[in-house]
Amino acid sequence: MKNILLDISYDGRNYVGWQIQPNGLSIEETLINSLDKLKIDHKNLVSSGRTDAGVNALHQKVNFFTNSNIPAERIKYALNTVLPKDIRILSSEEVSDDFHARYSAVGKHYTYYVNLNKIANPFEDQYSWNYTYPIDLKLLEEICSILEGEHDFKSFMKKGSSVKTTVRNLYKIKPTIEKNMLKLDFIGNGFLYNMVRILTGTILQYSSEQLKDFNSNEVFNNPNRSLVGITAPANGLFLSEVFYDNKSLEEAIEKLDLL
Amino acid sequence: MKNILLDISYDGRNYVGWQIQPNGLSIEETLINSLDKLKIDHKNLVSSGRTDAGVNALHQKVNFFTNSNIPAERIKYALNTVLPKDIRILSSEEVSDDFHARYSAVGKHYTYYVNLNKIANPFEDQYSWNYTYPIDLKLLEEICSILEGEHDFKSFMKKGSSVKTTVRNLYKIKPTIEKNMLKLDFIGNGFLYNMVRILTGTILQYSSEQLKDFNSNEVFNNPNRSLVGITAPANGLFLSEVFYDNKSLEEAIEKLDLL
Repeated sequence: MKNILLDISYDGRNYVGWQIQPNGLSIEETLINSLDKLKIDHKNLVSSGRTDAGVNALHQKVNFFTNSNIPAERIKYALNTVLPKDIRILSSEEVSDDFHARYSAVGKHYTYYVNLNKIANPFEDQYSWNYTYPIDLKLLEEICSILEGEHDFKSFMKKGSSVKTTVRNLYKIKPTIEKNMLKLDFIGNGFLYNMVRILTGTILQYSSEQLKDFNSNEVFNNPNRSLVGITAPANGLFLSEVFYDNKSLEEAIEKLDLL
Repeated sequence: MKNILLDISYDGRNYVGWQIQPNGLSIEETLINSLDKLKIDHKNLVSSGRTDAGVNALHQKVNFFTNSNIPAERIKYALNTVLPKDIRILSSEEVSDDFHARYSAVGKHYTYYVNLNKIANPFEDQYSWNYTYPIDLKLLEEICSILEGEHDFKSFMKKGSSVKTTVRNLYKIKPTIEKNMLKLDFIGNGFLYNMVRILTGTILQYSSEQLKDFNSNEVFNNPNRSLVGITAPANGLFLSEVFYDNKSLEEAIEKLDLL
């Protein structure tokens, strides 16, 4: 059997998220239906991680094992003929048998878009959070550097989720503003459930002085969801990249530093 | 009565076009329903022109007369609370009684996006035409300058449309390419039904040598729809601006020249 790696981009608006759900159509189910339609057998299909309902991906990674004799690099063209237009396979390639889209990942890059205009145009509005409180740039820089680094991010996890450890290393949070669109780039070794959206809500509320009693000591040492900001909406969030080697991870961090 | 000018941006995907139609929801109907919901009376509501089903607008202009005592500049906020998110009022202001969104216009700016990548990501794909034949940049420049100027554009009008004259002055067609996204900017004194989409189809087919028997003499002097290219899809087209004075029209043309 061959191990096939797919690079997938999707617009999350019309889906219940990556993972198969009983209550609606997921990206995973749509992809599996398309493989079935093409009679491409598949085993152990897995993504780098779930994305929530409404969350977008520029580069989600998925791998599966197949006996199909379609050349690996042709699979993308075949899939794109049957997939809906809001899911596109950007590349397909054969990888070594021990590659696993989730367990082989060494880091991830998420991007969150926040529109700071009083009125957002509809094109931006569908892919960003329209946040209209005035932002203090000094507070924005301050909160980003407070949140960077290795911490127990349990306060930034949706209540009721369960994981072995809630310690993550957030290598970089980089805010950039262009034409009133605030772009928040996050690179870390891993992210908890809803973590980027809660980080974003916290960053925005802190920067606009809506979260005056924020205490980083408490937040990290005596974690509680109620100590931090709101969960930013799903539609502003993009999974930008998944890293499978330290070199590309480091290069991505350096690239953000140059912004 | 006050004459109110609205600057509207809309994502055309979910609408049958600007104009009220029996077979589906239009932007015009949605706007009128919203004014009614707010109990803002309106008379002689008119836009700068129709946009087809699926066509987008960055700055469509609409005016109407009202007795409402809501201050003109507050109307945008009121409307945005009731309009769907894919239609946004960017500004609302009182204008002189003789202003007419259609008849007062001296020119329009349309932008068409063509994605030249073999595979388009879903975000770009929804707002552009994915055209995968290779483009010759010299032919692209050539056809744009052939089409510029004052001509009888009857060949570039949807068959069966009727207008007094099919002569239009196309002041500028400016192609720019960034990261394989071709942007075509058109500024003219007016446009026929489907004209920008047929111009775009012609430009792309000519530049990729798919339209080898193109003869501009025939096209302009013995006009026939069959002499020119296909109609590019609606979703790549944006109404970018409508001009109501010659100064802003000239400035927009100059700005394109600087690209």
